[in-house]
Amino acid sequence: MKGSGQKLSIFALGGVNEIGKNMYVVQYGKDIVVIDCGSKFPDESLLGIDLIIPDISYLMQNRDKVRALIITHGHEDHIGGLPYVLKQMNMPVYGTRLTLGLIEAKLREARLLGQTKLIPIDSDSRLELGSITAAFFKTNHSIPDCLGIAFETPEGTVVHTGDFKFDLTPVNEQYADIHKMADIGKNGVLALLSESTNAERPGFTPSERNVGEHILEAFRKARQKIFFSTFASNVHRLQQVIDAAAATRRKIALLGRGMENVVAIAAELGYIRIPEGMMVKPEEVNGLPPGRIAVLCTGSQGEPMSALSRLAGSMHRQVAILPGDTVILSATPIPGNERSVARMVDNLYRLGAEVIYGSGTVTGMHVSGHASQEELKLMLTLMKPKYFIPIHGEFRMLHLHGRLAETVGVDPGHIFIVGNGDVVDIENGTAVQARKVQAGNTLVDGWGIGDVGSIVLRDRKHLSEDGMLVVVVTLSRTEGQIVSGPDIISRGFVYVRESESLLEEANRLVAETIARLQAENVYQWSALKIGVKDVLGRYLYESTGRKPVILPIIMEI
Amino acid sequence: MKGSGQKLSIFALGGVNEIGKNMYVVQYGKDIVVIDCGSKFPDESLLGIDLIIPDISYLMQNRDKVRALIITHGHEDHIGGLPYVLKQMNMPVYGTRLTLGLIEAKLREARLLGQTKLIPIDSDSRLELGSITAAFFKTNHSIPDCLGIAFETPEGTVVHTGDFKFDLTPVNEQYADIHKMADIGKNGVLALLSESTNAERPGFTPSERNVGEHILEAFRKARQKIFFSTFASNVHRLQQVIDAAAATRRKIALLGRGMENVVAIAAELGYIRIPEGMMVKPEEVNGLPPGRIAVLCTGSQGEPMSALSRLAGSMHRQVAILPGDTVILSATPIPGNERSVARMVDNLYRLGAEVIYGSGTVTGMHVSGHASQEELKLMLTLMKPKYFIPIHGEFRMLHLHGRLAETVGVDPGHIFIVGNGDVVDIENGTAVQARKVQAGNTLVDGWGIGDVGSIVLRDRKHLSEDGMLVVVVTLSRTEGQIVSGPDIISRGFVYVRESESLLEEANRLVAETIARLQAENVYQWSALKIGVKDVLGRYLYESTGRKPVILPIIMEI
Repeated sequence: MKGSGQKLSIFALGGVNEIGKNMYVVQYGKDIVVIDCGSKFPDESLLGIDLIIPDISYLMQNRDKVRALIITHGHEDHIGGLPYVLKQMNMPVYGTRLTLGLIEAKLREARLLGQTKLIPIDSDSRLELGSITAAFFKTNHSIPDCLGIAFETPEGTVVHTGDFKFDLTPVNEQYADIHKMADIGKNGVLALLSESTNAERPGFTPSERNVGEHILEAFRKARQKIFFSTFASNVHRLQQVIDAAAATRRKIALLGRGMENVVAIAAELGYIRIPEGMMVKPEEVNGLPPGRIAVLCTGSQGEPMSALSRLAGSMHRQVAILPGDTVILSATPIPGNERSVARMVDNLYRLGAEVIYGSGTVTGMHVSGHASQEELKLMLTLMKPKYFIPIHGEFRMLHLHGRLAETVGVDPGHIFIVGNGDVVDIENGTAVQARKVQAGNTLVDGWGIGDVGSIVLRDRKHLSEDGMLVVVVTLSRTEGQIVSGPDIISRGFVYVRESESLLEEANRLVAETIARLQAENVYQWSALKIGVKDVLGRYLYESTGRKPVILPIIMEI
Repeated sequence: MKGSGQKLSIFALGGVNEIGKNMYVVQYGKDIVVIDCGSKFPDESLLGIDLIIPDISYLMQNRDKVRALIITHGHEDHIGGLPYVLKQMNMPVYGTRLTLGLIEAKLREARLLGQTKLIPIDSDSRLELGSITAAFFKTNHSIPDCLGIAFETPEGTVVHTGDFKFDLTPVNEQYADIHKMADIGKNGVLALLSESTNAERPGFTPSERNVGEHILEAFRKARQKIFFSTFASNVHRLQQVIDAAAATRRKIALLGRGMENVVAIAAELGYIRIPEGMMVKPEEVNGLPPGRIAVLCTGSQGEPMSALSRLAGSMHRQVAILPGDTVILSATPIPGNERSVARMVDNLYRLGAEVIYGSGTVTGMHVSGHASQEELKLMLTLMKPKYFIPIHGEFRMLHLHGRLAETVGVDPGHIFIVGNGDVVDIENGTAVQARKVQAGNTLVDGWGIGDVGSIVLRDRKHLSEDGMLVVVVTLSRTEGQIVSGPDIISRGFVYVRESESLLEEANRLVAETIARLQAENVYQWSALKIGVKDVLGRYLYESTGRKPVILPIIMEI
């Protein structure tokens, strides 16, 4: 196939220079395979935006070439974009059983389940996708049933690690396919795409089993109710809580929709083992002795409407945290969530609870699901790639991952630190990064996908800072004189009852400005509006130090 | 004086259940002494607010009793409220020379310098303030010239620690008065107010001198330009950078207004020692060999307009960061700032710099200025107070500080965890916490102090999420029919050019609704407005999933 003029192209539509909305593309000639379809939450500058998903213009323009969307695992930054992306463009979706279970729940909610082809795979599957063949290997991560992918292409093998760590003592026998990885590496890897989340972190990420030991210790020590909060998708963690509850003769109740969903799916598919008779309903909690109950709940990141936030605010209908209860936050706050977690911990202490919180390194109640530097080097060593593209991370993580690759022998000229849309083309064994495809953030707001852009956001920002002020005046068509108004209505600017004189003076200024302009023979509405806006803006800034949005409206009769 | 019916009252007007805007009050009968006058920055929910200061209603109502405002040190959370509070109410302000130097700069900017009485004190001062006498002791902190205060009152001695750590090897011989503290404790302390910032942190905070060793090591290793960023007020840190620069034959340039101000004040007052000829101007940097220059700059928290942020974005007019330069962030990101620091580090790596960043514990480039648990216990042990009021911290810090006090022997019933405004009254040696005075957040927005309240903020929040929509219609006074409009203007809702049909339909619905209501004999404006708002709100939510602020305006002629 070489020399056919076709080439291999690799790029990200999301996931590099950011944490979140992962989507990668491997293309050979007329065959496109898409990996993952994530979402991410907007930062505080994107006012009113609900979610960010990848811009899939490239895929829509090449609709006929897309052979498959392969999902590596069931985390939101890998599946959260599906309900929105599939609305724009249908594709067959491949994933392991647990991954598809989580996706089904999402698509059912979005009423897309019927029209989407979901194809279960496992680590032994081989998919023939035109000129590309996909094979798989199991990895360890903070959710079961994760895959890495080896794409066999006419140019050579491209490996995408998915999210991974090396956990040599995993929970529920979820061993990684290290021998398979070694074989893939031995047979030659043209290009490796490896995740970079923890590229800043020295050492080797501890095993999930370490957390189990700390959980059991805390369960043994607690005299009253235990509230254990973690990411619902961390099925291994949930299993260890269930094991600790069994060992200390506690029943388990679930609080939070996310927790109920994941436990139901994981139990049904056999990814979690719950002893007979252990689960109780939330309304049964109060009837049990405090020392015989553990509550598994969502809210480890202090999310305002989560079960634990509601419990901390004494706002849960069925269950209450009482003095002497133990609350365990089994998660490290994600950057940006520190303040809401801290506020929740304050409230838990106010209720008299013992609280175990803070960095997992200190409490032992959390370990990362991502590979630290030594594990990243191990993956690079196993794969021995010719070309290396660090993915899944912000710039500094990609950069530091690139440096790690150098230390284990990858040619610095063969390392590509790319942005979303930057294409690495490989032809006849030689890689070049020179062209771009369209890529970026598609903003979801309400039902709208991609209809909120920079102008709308700029207006929201301006409105949020100093509010707004509408000035309406009705002019007569014939003579141009004011027949009604000016009327001023404000929102978010000043408290009107305390600012009557300010607004009266503003009114007077507007009438005076219109009269003055008309006396100067200015009658065009646009000129009158600009005049009013200028005078009013200056007056309000001088009086208040604020610059509200000013909307002059002229009506004519 | 005992049995006179007078009592001692202690409370916070700011600084408990929060980090920031510290203000404490010690009152005996007709004498009030105020300690500190801080500000804090609003969180993301307070849209458009510039600053938060304490609500000083209590002081204004008791204006004639206020004998002094004593400032413990020159950090923003202790002096930042001065320009706003002094505008509301004049008070004589006491502080050490460096503290007053920093306050003067603030008051000059606010044009309040002439009318404010600033009285310099040192650790040997004794102030007679009616029935209260204030004596002082030096503490170690991340700014020089800090004081703790011992108030002698007819009820007994009240100690306020100010901010402190115990640094046994301080920079520039800024030793704490440990012997004085021991004497105060030996003579009997009725109540201790001690700061709680690091009450969650085990152990003993390392000495500032540790940082100096790491700075020198980094300076020796760097081959090209060094950019060193830290809090401008950390004069000890600045001294250590100057010392390292002297040892490695580098000149120093200052970037950032805050850095220039503090260095000027500290140098003039003798708190910093700069070798002759070491300082160069920013415009001279490019003329020097890269190995002979170090730049001291602001921006260690990633503040968007700071010197380092501008350098990282290649937006500084005089100086550029080039590949191979070293950038040192000598600070741990404050919760809430992680993301902006991370973005800045990304940009620095993009420029090819070596970046030393992250937790000071890991890099050695930063130590806290606050006492960890062992030091808090040491202070409690030195003072042996009868009553203990932990201050300066969020609830969990106060709570954990209270527990530390128990471990060193303070009676649990004598520990008061208070909120702002909660008064601890002490009479005949017995303390009771039962009453409150007015306290809270006063919001500063533009020139306005306290004029933005919950309604304005709620409107700003609503505007920021889905924007707004004004519908104007002019009705004839006589017959009520529409003579002009309806006209719809929106901001921050949808991009108008792409939503013409949506807005046309909205227009049609408004006209139809008014006609329908009038046919039902509804003519009151308020009812028409509610009708229009309902119909339009429902239509827009169904079409877009958004709920903009809708402002119906009816004009009449």
